[in-house]
Amino acid sequence: MIRKQIAMFSLMLGFSTSILAIDEPIQPIKPVQNINLGQVELGKKLYFDPRLSKSGFISCNSCHNLSMGGTDNLKTSIGHNWQQGPINAPTVLNSSLNVAQFWDGRAADLKAQAGGPIANPGEMAFTHTLAIDVLTSIPEYVMEFKQVFGSDKITIDEVTQAIAEFEKTLVTPNSRFDQWLLGDKQALSQDEMAGYTLFKESGCVSCHNGEAVGGNSFQKMGVVEPYKAKSPAEGLSAVTGKDADRFKFKVPTLRNVEMTYPYFHDGEAETLTEAVDVMGRLQLGKKFSDIENAQIVAFLKTLTGDQPAFLMPILPPSTDMTPAPKPFE
Amino acid sequence: MIRKQIAMFSLMLGFSTSILAIDEPIQPIKPVQNINLGQVELGKKLYFDPRLSKSGFISCNSCHNLSMGGTDNLKTSIGHNWQQGPINAPTVLNSSLNVAQFWDGRAADLKAQAGGPIANPGEMAFTHTLAIDVLTSIPEYVMEFKQVFGSDKITIDEVTQAIAEFEKTLVTPNSRFDQWLLGDKQALSQDEMAGYTLFKESGCVSCHNGEAVGGNSFQKMGVVEPYKAKSPAEGLSAVTGKDADRFKFKVPTLRNVEMTYPYFHDGEAETLTEAVDVMGRLQLGKKFSDIENAQIVAFLKTLTGDQPAFLMPILPPSTDMTPAPKPFE
Repeated sequence: MIRKQIAMFSLMLGFSTSILAIDEPIQPIKPVQNINLGQVELGKKLYFDPRLSKSGFISCNSCHNLSMGGTDNLKTSIGHNWQQGPINAPTVLNSSLNVAQFWDGRAADLKAQAGGPIANPGEMAFTHTLAIDVLTSIPEYVMEFKQVFGSDKITIDEVTQAIAEFEKTLVTPNSRFDQWLLGDKQALSQDEMAGYTLFKESGCVSCHNGEAVGGNSFQKMGVVEPYKAKSPAEGLSAVTGKDADRFKFKVPTLRNVEMTYPYFHDGEAETLTEAVDVMGRLQLGKKFSDIENAQIVAFLKTLTGDQPAFLMPILPPSTDMTPAPKPFE
Repeated sequence: MIRKQIAMFSLMLGFSTSILAIDEPIQPIKPVQNINLGQVELGKKLYFDPRLSKSGFISCNSCHNLSMGGTDNLKTSIGHNWQQGPINAPTVLNSSLNVAQFWDGRAADLKAQAGGPIANPGEMAFTHTLAIDVLTSIPEYVMEFKQVFGSDKITIDEVTQAIAEFEKTLVTPNSRFDQWLLGDKQALSQDEMAGYTLFKESGCVSCHNGEAVGGNSFQKMGVVEPYKAKSPAEGLSAVTGKDADRFKFKVPTLRNVEMTYPYFHDGEAETLTEAVDVMGRLQLGKKFSDIENAQIVAFLKTLTGDQPAFLMPILPPSTDMTPAPKPFE
């Protein structure tokens, strides 16, 4: 019934029903709903506030940089005291669509994720208690938390809730591929269409599907051929304790993949060409020709959507009571 | 003649002529003029682009953070490989009003300054040549440079020109003190007015004057009493080679000083209260009472102006040809 209504609606608009999103394994990104704007504005400040780190130098945005596809574009990230992170920073864009957070899925949702890096000694190297101490020393924050959450005392639960609510807004609709899904047959070139056909027919789409073109399952890295990793990361087994889950990682979203280089959980693939080649061989037992590879890459680049557009937040200043950051201790 | 016209205009608006800006040693921030908007938009991207650093992690905004008063709010900055910088990062806000750039004035203007940190081994640790290689590998940048500068080849001269042009827009008009200067007698409280009177009558204003409330001269740190510095920085003498210029530093702007903590070239003063106390004793031979100190601090907080408001820039992605950053080499 719904399908019929959509078909009729499409005909009214002059679109062919054959290219309706409903027939495709990838769906257009839906507008965000049920957003608490107060939490979003507060969470945006917190996302950009390096005072949630021990050094006063690292914020969420340091490694999930919203100017750069929600990543740091590094193989593995730089943490407190220039420590080298163990894994590639996944994009925060469209991360609300993930089945779970982190490569190994150890956080159920964005809120559970947000507290992790703050207290990770290799990342922001702070503690939740110290972070709350900092925020509580800043009257503008105290007032804004009170306004948004109605409580007198700032809690880490509120901090992560606000950051998660901001992150929920970081979806990237309106990519050329979504325009095509929504009925604009001219949105893709012949090569891009050929790439999408290859993407579907070769089996890429069996993992990279849905609204986020991934993010909704855990899969073994190295199905047909083993993946020779330099990284010690073992993926889902670190969470479940099951040997069968070794080297299973959350399938990354391919939305904005042109911006989220380098690729894989260890960041070892520098280019899309390389990533497509490795995925074809190791996951599908298929060696794409140069032309096929280029077509798939051309398709992948149509997944770049509208990037988050917002005013750079201005952070409330510290006060005489605010504990000073300790970058060199 | 002009003064008379202003007086008449003020009378028409119901303002008293006695508080006209023209009679004060501090002037309101003037609107920015003669701006090249193409350069500004390009410069904004470059200002936020960490690919101008060896690590791919440090941008201009890392240490001159526009969410935080144009500073990093650290005693001394964090550079490549977590090196500790030798000096406090001065604010980029209103820096176009400075007589010269850097604490020791070694750069004549913003353009001359902008190239410094990129190539400084302790800061962004890159070279101008490598930075140009990165930008040249990114077609969107090549096109934008061509559009803005009309040339096919990106040069470091254009890079620093664009960054400087963006920085020229980072003025902060409309502080409560400027509103007062412009005739709104209600803009300041009694304490703030008392603080301003003290600021003038005690002699603070002899160095902190003009549009930026500083930034227009070099003065010795420690006039009446010597300043016991832990920092080895010697200031202007490093530039002029003159012994008489030892410990002379550019007088910092006091615009937005509430946001630009900690204070002094070495960042040793954590609070405004401490900074006012030290300045009073060492520069003026005057010990402010607690009440006087608080009044001066109250006045200083009226110098916080409208912070730069702009959309977070989205950076063009690297390509297969872009040299990868080297954070851990």
